[in-house]
Amino acid sequence: MKLRHLVCACALASMSFAPALNAQTIETERADIELQTVAQGLENPWGLAFLPDGSMLVTERTGTMRKVGADGEVSEPLTGLPEIFVRGQGGLLDVAVDPNYADNGWIYFSYSEPGDGGNSTALARAKLDGKALVELELIFSQQPKVSSNNHFGSRIVFKGDGTLFLTLGDRYSRMDDAQTLDNHHGKVIRINTDGSVPADNPFVDTEGALPEIWSYGHRNMQGATVHPQTGELWSGEHGAQGGDELNIDRAGLNYGWPVVTYGEDYGGGKIGEGFKKEGMETPIYYWLPSLATAGLTFYTGDVFPKWKGDIFVASLRAETLSRLDIEGERVLHEERLLADELGERLRHVVQGPKGYLYLLTDASDGKIIRIAPAD
Amino acid sequence: MKLRHLVCACALASMSFAPALNAQTIETERADIELQTVAQGLENPWGLAFLPDGSMLVTERTGTMRKVGADGEVSEPLTGLPEIFVRGQGGLLDVAVDPNYADNGWIYFSYSEPGDGGNSTALARAKLDGKALVELELIFSQQPKVSSNNHFGSRIVFKGDGTLFLTLGDRYSRMDDAQTLDNHHGKVIRINTDGSVPADNPFVDTEGALPEIWSYGHRNMQGATVHPQTGELWSGEHGAQGGDELNIDRAGLNYGWPVVTYGEDYGGGKIGEGFKKEGMETPIYYWLPSLATAGLTFYTGDVFPKWKGDIFVASLRAETLSRLDIEGERVLHEERLLADELGERLRHVVQGPKGYLYLLTDASDGKIIRIAPAD
Ligand SMILES: [Ca+2]
Ligand SMILES: [Ca+2]
Ligand SMILES: [Ca+2]
Ligand SMILES: [Ca+2]
Repeated sequence: MKLRHLVCACALASMSFAPALNAQTIETERADIELQTVAQGLENPWGLAFLPDGSMLVTERTGTMRKVGADGEVSEPLTGLPEIFVRGQGGLLDVAVDPNYADNGWIYFSYSEPGDGGNSTALARAKLDGKALVELELIFSQQPKVSSNNHFGSRIVFKGDGTLFLTLGDRYSRMDDAQTLDNHHGKVIRINTDGSVPADNPFVDTEGALPEIWSYGHRNMQGATVHPQTGELWSGEHGAQGGDELNIDRAGLNYGWPVVTYGEDYGGGKIGEGFKKEGMETPIYYWLPSLATAGLTFYTGDVFPKWKGDIFVASLRAETLSRLDIEGERVLHEERLLADELGERLRHVVQGPKGYLYLLTDASDGKIIRIAPAD
Repeated sequence: MKLRHLVCACALASMSFAPALNAQTIETERADIELQTVAQGLENPWGLAFLPDGSMLVTERTGTMRKVGADGEVSEPLTGLPEIFVRGQGGLLDVAVDPNYADNGWIYFSYSEPGDGGNSTALARAKLDGKALVELELIFSQQPKVSSNNHFGSRIVFKGDGTLFLTLGDRYSRMDDAQTLDNHHGKVIRINTDGSVPADNPFVDTEGALPEIWSYGHRNMQGATVHPQTGELWSGEHGAQGGDELNIDRAGLNYGWPVVTYGEDYGGGKIGEGFKKEGMETPIYYWLPSLATAGLTFYTGDVFPKWKGDIFVASLRAETLSRLDIEGERVLHEERLLADELGERLRHVVQGPKGYLYLLTDASDGKIIRIAPAD
């Protein structure tokens, strides 16, 4: 086993770039690109984060985390993860590296946590010692736990002020909870990176409200990122019966679910009261029919100069990477990429340290794919 | 001839609705609709306006105006039009009925006017006496005239304060003129309905500027409408090499053409300096690739309650009717209708007095088509 890895590493190390998926140059509106397979054989990869040395941490929803070298070498599963509920949409989910990793070594990951009453999304942190996760700390656990296999969220986003956001799904069976503040269903929460509650959270002084809550009335957000200039949280949310939303999640505001939704009125009857209601936020943009939006990121790199400031959104059902041209808080234009050329369910999109984009395909033989400029 | 018309009228009068194009119910995101042919055999119809009695005036680009009864009867060409330059994109263009028509009887129409140096877009008004246009007045003539068959604009929109807007193309061969105020190329103009210049126009006190100018830096706007609440002018503009724009045209502002454009960088080289520039307005939304957008309107009727507040945009090349869900100054969502079910170049979309939408197809056997709720 060790020998096989050694051979692989040598073979890969001899290539200066990951191999192109095929020789195809893909012409898009603002860039000619090619796809390069960085790694494959991953089981439903969900989260991806870069370490300072250019290597990556990747989660598999089936409950493992691996390290992937800058050269594409995939490690054995890291040891030291907590017990994880792996079923339906549940499992090991996002992973994030502390902005001060060089100083403190913390790695954060979200997962479905089994426990009394069922399961819920939890957030833990640990440090990496070789191929072991050590000094494990559970820093947040969604309340209450329920018996459900769906809508766990969950993306981890650093706000840049020593706090982080975690997006939390409505657990599907508990959608009405999204409108009340006595639970963590259908919420964005904000906590300090050690799990304590920031004193300036919007509901810390509200009786009966859970103090971690940042915004509410959400359904299931599998994409979230911070705007590179404003520092605000932008998130993508799966709509019911369509109507995936892009929102700017602001402190204390209600994003409407399940009262208002842009989902289609199928024969099954209307879910909400309509599209809009006083006191509930309207999204920036919505997709109907649903793409099943997943991870998203602002592009800030130099490799694709005409993509600067755009949002990229990975989608599962539509198997596309949407590029949204953003002006202030408006979507000026949407371009849908890769549905024809790749045709795979996309779970996530991340910008790497050198300005390339990296995709995770959602498959039992899942890949990390790099988007590079065509030669 | 008279007898034939009489027979037609009786036959049509016995039907309470225009015949459906076919029995098909078209399911859309927010309404189930059907298409009804109101009239056919029109030569490249361009403009459509309703008279208070429910009958319509329709222009044919080939240089004729006809009256169409509420029952669909199409008249012989009205007499009394001025001389019209009919070639390329030129001909008889838009038609509009004065908001105070019941009192004053004025009908306005735009057209390509031949004259010294070539041709340009002109605006005239007249009154209807049976099948004759009488009391003809030329109220505006675009300066200068040039030898070009392209980019005439032109939509006529009443602002609701006794003035009207007319959109004027850059004439294609004179695109740089769009950036200077000493001409009417690539401009929106605002005049009183008698052709005089409103004292509060933005450039009335600017030396060397033509006083009719409202906004500049435009290319070719074939769609324009006033927002039902704000009263602002919203226009659709053909982009070069793609990049059709939706703009809110505000007094004195520069909309960038040909300096900035969202058109694609084809091999042919870049037209402008990029997408954005200080002092030039960014559109609300853009289409790339181009749909070749034409007429547009806000929907304010009750027949389709879930379309209220949306903008509908007819397009030529894409043969679609785009529905834009508008929130403030944001496009939340675009739905493209009818490309599959109708598949015709669409020159214009107008809301009728009862809240139905009416389309003009751009063909030598052009039609007026009504969109009605499916039974
Ligand atoms: Ca919402
Ligand atoms: Ca952009
Ligand atoms: Ca422009
Ligand atoms: Ca709407």
